[in-house]
Amino acid sequence: MKEKIRCAIFGVGRLGYVHAENLAARIKGAELVTIVASRKESAEKAARELGAKKWTTNPQEVFEDPTIDAVVIVTPTKLHAPLIIQAAKSKKHIFVDKPLTETLGEAEMVIREIQENNVYCQVGFMRRFDPAYAEAKRRIENGDIGQPIYFKGVSRDPGSPPEAYIQTSGGIFLDLAIHEYDIARFLIGDEVKSVKTLGNVLVHPFMNKYGDVDQSITFMNFQNGASCDIEASRNSTFGYDIRGEVVGTEGSIQIGSLQHHDIKILTSRGSAYDNIPSFPIKFKDAFQYELAHFIECLQKDERPQVTEIDGKISLEIAVAATKSFQTKETVMLN
Amino acid sequence: MKEKIRCAIFGVGRLGYVHAENLAARIKGAELVTIVASRKESAEKAARELGAKKWTTNPQEVFEDPTIDAVVIVTPTKLHAPLIIQAAKSKKHIFVDKPLTETLGEAEMVIREIQENNVYCQVGFMRRFDPAYAEAKRRIENGDIGQPIYFKGVSRDPGSPPEAYIQTSGGIFLDLAIHEYDIARFLIGDEVKSVKTLGNVLVHPFMNKYGDVDQSITFMNFQNGASCDIEASRNSTFGYDIRGEVVGTEGSIQIGSLQHHDIKILTSRGSAYDNIPSFPIKFKDAFQYELAHFIECLQKDERPQVTEIDGKISLEIAVAATKSFQTKETVMLN
Amino acid sequence: MKEKIRCAIFGVGRLGYVHAENLAARIKGAELVTIVASRKESAEKAARELGAKKWTTNPQEVFEDPTIDAVVIVTPTKLHAPLIIQAAKSKKHIFVDKPLTETLGEAEMVIREIQENNVYCQVGFMRRFDPAYAEAKRRIENGDIGQPIYFKGVSRDPGSPPEAYIQTSGGIFLDLAIHEYDIARFLIGDEVKSVKTLGNVLVHPFMNKYGDVDQSITFMNFQNGASCDIEASRNSTFGYDIRGEVVGTEGSIQIGSLQHHDIKILTSRGSAYDNIPSFPIKFKDAFQYELAHFIECLQKDERPQVTEIDGKISLEIAVAATKSFQTKETVMLN
Amino acid sequence: MKEKIRCAIFGVGRLGYVHAENLAARIKGAELVTIVASRKESAEKAARELGAKKWTTNPQEVFEDPTIDAVVIVTPTKLHAPLIIQAAKSKKHIFVDKPLTETLGEAEMVIREIQENNVYCQVGFMRRFDPAYAEAKRRIENGDIGQPIYFKGVSRDPGSPPEAYIQTSGGIFLDLAIHEYDIARFLIGDEVKSVKTLGNVLVHPFMNKYGDVDQSITFMNFQNGASCDIEASRNSTFGYDIRGEVVGTEGSIQIGSLQHHDIKILTSRGSAYDNIPSFPIKFKDAFQYELAHFIECLQKDERPQVTEIDGKISLEIAVAATKSFQTKETVMLN
Repeated sequence: MKEKIRCAIFGVGRLGYVHAENLAARIKGAELVTIVASRKESAEKAARELGAKKWTTNPQEVFEDPTIDAVVIVTPTKLHAPLIIQAAKSKKHIFVDKPLTETLGEAEMVIREIQENNVYCQVGFMRRFDPAYAEAKRRIENGDIGQPIYFKGVSRDPGSPPEAYIQTSGGIFLDLAIHEYDIARFLIGDEVKSVKTLGNVLVHPFMNKYGDVDQSITFMNFQNGASCDIEASRNSTFGYDIRGEVVGTEGSIQIGSLQHHDIKILTSRGSAYDNIPSFPIKFKDAFQYELAHFIECLQKDERPQVTEIDGKISLEIAVAATKSFQTKETVMLN
Repeated sequence: MKEKIRCAIFGVGRLGYVHAENLAARIKGAELVTIVASRKESAEKAARELGAKKWTTNPQEVFEDPTIDAVVIVTPTKLHAPLIIQAAKSKKHIFVDKPLTETLGEAEMVIREIQENNVYCQVGFMRRFDPAYAEAKRRIENGDIGQPIYFKGVSRDPGSPPEAYIQTSGGIFLDLAIHEYDIARFLIGDEVKSVKTLGNVLVHPFMNKYGDVDQSITFMNFQNGASCDIEASRNSTFGYDIRGEVVGTEGSIQIGSLQHHDIKILTSRGSAYDNIPSFPIKFKDAFQYELAHFIECLQKDERPQVTEIDGKISLEIAVAATKSFQTKETVMLN
Repeated sequence: MKEKIRCAIFGVGRLGYVHAENLAARIKGAELVTIVASRKESAEKAARELGAKKWTTNPQEVFEDPTIDAVVIVTPTKLHAPLIIQAAKSKKHIFVDKPLTETLGEAEMVIREIQENNVYCQVGFMRRFDPAYAEAKRRIENGDIGQPIYFKGVSRDPGSPPEAYIQTSGGIFLDLAIHEYDIARFLIGDEVKSVKTLGNVLVHPFMNKYGDVDQSITFMNFQNGASCDIEASRNSTFGYDIRGEVVGTEGSIQIGSLQHHDIKILTSRGSAYDNIPSFPIKFKDAFQYELAHFIECLQKDERPQVTEIDGKISLEIAVAATKSFQTKETVMLN
Repeated sequence: MKEKIRCAIFGVGRLGYVHAENLAARIKGAELVTIVASRKESAEKAARELGAKKWTTNPQEVFEDPTIDAVVIVTPTKLHAPLIIQAAKSKKHIFVDKPLTETLGEAEMVIREIQENNVYCQVGFMRRFDPAYAEAKRRIENGDIGQPIYFKGVSRDPGSPPEAYIQTSGGIFLDLAIHEYDIARFLIGDEVKSVKTLGNVLVHPFMNKYGDVDQSITFMNFQNGASCDIEASRNSTFGYDIRGEVVGTEGSIQIGSLQHHDIKILTSRGSAYDNIPSFPIKFKDAFQYELAHFIECLQKDERPQVTEIDGKISLEIAVAATKSFQTKETVMLN
């Protein structure tokens, strides 16, 4: 087993910094060597705070550094494809945040490079590593609810990202609902056959300009006959509300809650607890565990779960979902 | 205020008996005088058990009895229209289980008769009287969640009714989801503009014969811009699972749970509580309160909530939902 | 089976009125005939509101009325003994609120009269009829937690009664904790061997004048080796907080919660639900079911559960608890 | 700020290994240099697994190693005093698991050494660092429940440790309830004035041999008038059940639950979730955070929370609790 996996990270924004911290301080098998960011100040500051040896604004430095084993890509989506391709060509293993790429054409290209260069790639669908979702999967496989026949997902952001982000986000199905598409596949254990979506702008009128919505529903049929509905919204002013349910032929599993601290305050106005405000809190452990899994796989020279193929399939669903919304038709997947 | 409202009940099946018991024993202002059932034995047995003075298999006896103030109709749906019309003509007030009638044509006829004869009519959408839904409405009106923008309903029967029932039930949208259509209107406080439905047979293949499904989703837009999704299914082997949520611009209300007794059993296998098995348990109070409201309105000569108009509107939505499912199109309401 | 049990009620204060309403409107086998109250206005008003035929301020009218089958006594405790004795002598069955009597001497006297006159007596330990406690008992008897070895009770009033009430209440052990003593016996299924109590005045200094406390703990050993702790307090500003737990050799049952309506409000300040404010709401069903049980027993000529003997035993425990608090010693029961 | 705190750990049993892992892999500012264990094989194995440079069975190697900054002591209690004294004399900072020492005499000795040698000492009352307890403290200080007046603690082990452990454990008050004594002081924010304890052997008869019990209750009064009750038991066959509640003059905080994964399984037998089985799972984060706090304090040259003084005070309470149990008297603290 390889001692330490030497890593570079691309991007130290909100989520990038979470990954960088995990690499630096919480994942035994990883060494955070280089931080790459487009702004010099960000790169330098993160390197100092996290004790990384190097920082740079030039990705090439990483690709030309033979001591780097793996890259963690947490940049804007449009940079995913070029970075993955260069990483693969440089024989570096790849962890890339979702979505794999911006387009299906790019997805096919990066898959080809990854496979030709024989490197490993894991896509950042962290929910699979959340202790609740992971335990749900284990219970389903254990037969606790019989055969899974229906998935019901709720994915609510506590507000809209800024207009500038929405403009290039690819829309709610590609940007937000894609997490649910992956987890639905994971929990149902099958592939999607058809997708039908609907949506509305309920709170953020500016979204109309970009053909985007802040409230959406996706209805999907699976090849094995199971089906699902998924609500994705930007309108939960009350917290980061991620829940799921898998109905089976002999029972159901409900996953997740909005409760943050494990305390309740009782007053004459009622009983209350605080809500999970944001994704870094909700998925603190999941972000750590997904990266730990990636590093451990590299140490053991094993293929990680949630590969570039999963990345591509979820992207296909998200593209179909977007098309269904635009055409008002059910879209079939092949 | 009128002392006692003298009532006759038509139908003492499962739900009919619940209503009859409430009239006989739990609603102060009501007197259960006559029980009408198609089978002599049922009528006689219920009359004996509940202390009703008369029983008959002939509805005319009720309509010709000048001492009867009101009728409670809990028969198969196809009898609703003729019974309502005769009751109205006989100047008897009417409580009728949902749906108001089988067809929209009938609905218009009965509305005309009710209004011409100046009697009151309440339709049995009991969820409005369930303490949880009623409190949710009060909280919404109190402004606790801002403006309601989304309703999410779950209505899961713990299994399918027998094939014979399904055959004449009118389908899942008319028979089951209609409760949710009424409660969505009630909680959002507005009327539906468009309906789109999807569904599948997941568990009960015989439903295919009747063009019915055991798992359905309804997506509706309201005139004020709000929208909703409603899951109705026959597949919750784990209990009678009725829940709702109203998302507002400043918060959300989650309504209902599956827990039956207010106890938890903790063992080495985990912590557990029992689930609500069936509608008479879930809506025990609601069934009592809706009838108490009806009787109280009659005593005070006031119009009850949930009138024949509400009955007709929910029926229109259910008919549109069925049409959307059959045509795969979004159906507009006028 | 006797058709209707004709009842008189003594006392129409807060709890008395609840019982009177149940007799008048919700218990099929009962007829509320006479209302007795010390103040003419109260008696007359309650009779009018509840449709009772007679009202009086003179208890003798009830005892001399041969048409009365049963009396329901909800007066101040010091009147329990004389009313029970007169009722028994007049061959009327008796439902009496807890505690059975003020003193153990009185308890013995009333038991003698009840037994000599061959009437039935039920004491108002309504918790046994609460659906949660009743189901817990059923589960224990079913063996779901093995052998019960520990009971943990919490009984918190949402504030102190007025000073005038405290002055004659007999103290927190006799007035409040006695409910828990009965339910501990019921759930453990055994009799108490020793009692040790401690307490403090935490919020209401006036209690010091009467040797009473607003926060108390009772620790009891049972004859079969089981033990228990019981907190009784007047300090739960946040609601009427009644909970219990029975730990067994193979599991535990937790009973009750503070939640009132089955809804949750989610806002940016957290998730909240309302608390049960008071005993009439917490034990709405229990009050109805205990009286229904009493009436049904009379109709069938059967001995009710929770008899005068239970009343006396719980009183013995409460007296021992009070003595333990005063002497700072463990008190043995025989 | 000091770069890395070089640590040695004494003891790699169940809890010791948890601490060692945290030092090795999850606490950025720490470097695990040396592992000391009484058995050569344990020391060597842990060093190999965790990547520690050195291992030894001889504590002197650590005390004589000038590169070691701090020691983490997780040995049997009777070794605490000699190890702390040697560590202090060698100018090493000290993290020691609870209880500080076996006797109050030893506690005074180690406090003197710690203070004379000007080193820092933190005692392992990890509950203070559990996110739920920490948030509860923050809420109390924020005034969310007014003035705290009552603490109610439940601390239930999922079974008894082996007889050999019980024999030298010091008894349930010193070994188990001491965690609650510390947390009660922490949450009430005041010192204990008097202690009264009671207890029984309910499940493990062998405890009688050692004058120990498996079920205990502690009732304490604080100097500021607040009071508390604490149940400590070895009888929760259903999981590791640690909960607390702080009642204040304006509300209450309930802390903790038994739920492990954030999922619920719904079947026809009811709804269920799994329970927390053991302390390493319940306090996973707390163990990490307490050590991270210790290391961070050393880096910043600041005094940690939960010092040797807290260790001594909790020990005084536990000794008084044991005496109260033996003498059946209330014991005053000075």
